[in-house]
Amino acid sequence: MNYRITLAYDGTDYSGWQFQLGRRTIQAVLSGALEKLDGAPVTAYAAGRTDAGVHAEGQVVSFRLTREMDGATLLRALNGNLPQDIRVLESSQVADDFHARTDAKSKTYLYQLYNSEVMNPLLARYALHYPYDVDLDRLIEDSHSLVGTHDFTAFTVAECETRTRVRSVTGIKIERAGNILTFSFTGDGFLRYQIRTMVEALVEANRGRLKTRSIAELILSRDRSLVGAPAPAKGLTLMKVEY
Amino acid sequence: MNYRITLAYDGTDYSGWQFQLGRRTIQAVLSGALEKLDGAPVTAYAAGRTDAGVHAEGQVVSFRLTREMDGATLLRALNGNLPQDIRVLESSQVADDFHARTDAKSKTYLYQLYNSEVMNPLLARYALHYPYDVDLDRLIEDSHSLVGTHDFTAFTVAECETRTRVRSVTGIKIERAGNILTFSFTGDGFLRYQIRTMVEALVEANRGRLKTRSIAELILSRDRSLVGAPAPAKGLTLMKVEY
Repeated sequence: MNYRITLAYDGTDYSGWQFQLGRRTIQAVLSGALEKLDGAPVTAYAAGRTDAGVHAEGQVVSFRLTREMDGATLLRALNGNLPQDIRVLESSQVADDFHARTDAKSKTYLYQLYNSEVMNPLLARYALHYPYDVDLDRLIEDSHSLVGTHDFTAFTVAECETRTRVRSVTGIKIERAGNILTFSFTGDGFLRYQIRTMVEALVEANRGRLKTRSIAELILSRDRSLVGAPAPAKGLTLMKVEY
Repeated sequence: MNYRITLAYDGTDYSGWQFQLGRRTIQAVLSGALEKLDGAPVTAYAAGRTDAGVHAEGQVVSFRLTREMDGATLLRALNGNLPQDIRVLESSQVADDFHARTDAKSKTYLYQLYNSEVMNPLLARYALHYPYDVDLDRLIEDSHSLVGTHDFTAFTVAECETRTRVRSVTGIKIERAGNILTFSFTGDGFLRYQIRTMVEALVEANRGRLKTRSIAELILSRDRSLVGAPAPAKGLTLMKVEY
């Protein structure tokens, strides 16, 4: 039987989604709970292979079980076997050919900055402290350059082994609520570190520290050395996957 | 010199405000940082002596230092010596007779419930998981009984040693935003566990489990045994103190 679940997790204490020998990862912990349930090893596929420290409110995962269970029973059984920082929000049986990663049509990620001289300790796990002046209009204007289909080589890791570094960013929304600045990124898929490096570039441009004359020029350069390290993982949350 | 600071803290890893031998408390950690700064022991007074696990976004604290410092310097020096889960948001020199606790005119606390079958792990440190149906109109109507000047004996600990258990609750606001229910309580002062026990009583009434016919009757009973244990500390945050 093929199943689909929606997962929320606090990524603070995990080395990301993907299984890694000797590391505590979301995939390893979830697979452990699934194996306990099914009595045999289970491979789980996630829509977004989130990096170490990245959170999720709407990760989608698919896997096969030998047992037949209804969604509500599976949800309760899994939450009973998972730690409190990983929760199954939805669960259902799905068509045999559904695959959480390869069938995903679009993903939305949120990045949060806390924009004040002093950090709010209640947001310290989920937002980057950004104590500098923000020109919101410029941030929004600069973000428009990133929307569209581009070669995002300048925004990923050098050793990134994908066939193509062309991706489509379909929308970026930047909003302020009090001291909290949220960046919402939607696209058909993102390269490793792409979102966090786009945030870094937007922030560098806002502080007048971009090495190129514009974000558009940075994209065209396809040169990873022209922008700083990706913004910290803790500010990033996978919000939604569409199929 | 007399100083006043505004403090935010994540109370998760602290045994509350008040100094206790062998325990990590906000007062102990702050006093350590102040002593380092002033070279002599410093006693700090807080507007609200928050219990173990309770958070703050607007705690006000006063203390005397032998050194004269401007507010901005004191803020930076203190934040440099405090852990990341305690932050000084504001700091200034004040009139010699200012006292953070005895001069406080009103305090506002927030209590958060997360109302969904499954808890959101990103809110697990700051909200109580409440998986039951909520009748918001009834919650608001019931809360009106708590507003005003009452003897709140039924809502505090038996051994509570204050001269009077009469307090004035000047306002309660209950709002829903998505799955998050927030209760905002304003008053001249609150007894130990009073807010968390008021939340417990409101929630019991909403589930039809109150032992008295109404909240009004519970207040009049002055009987602590008629309502359950206080709602958990982690949902409570001291938001604002007015002078």
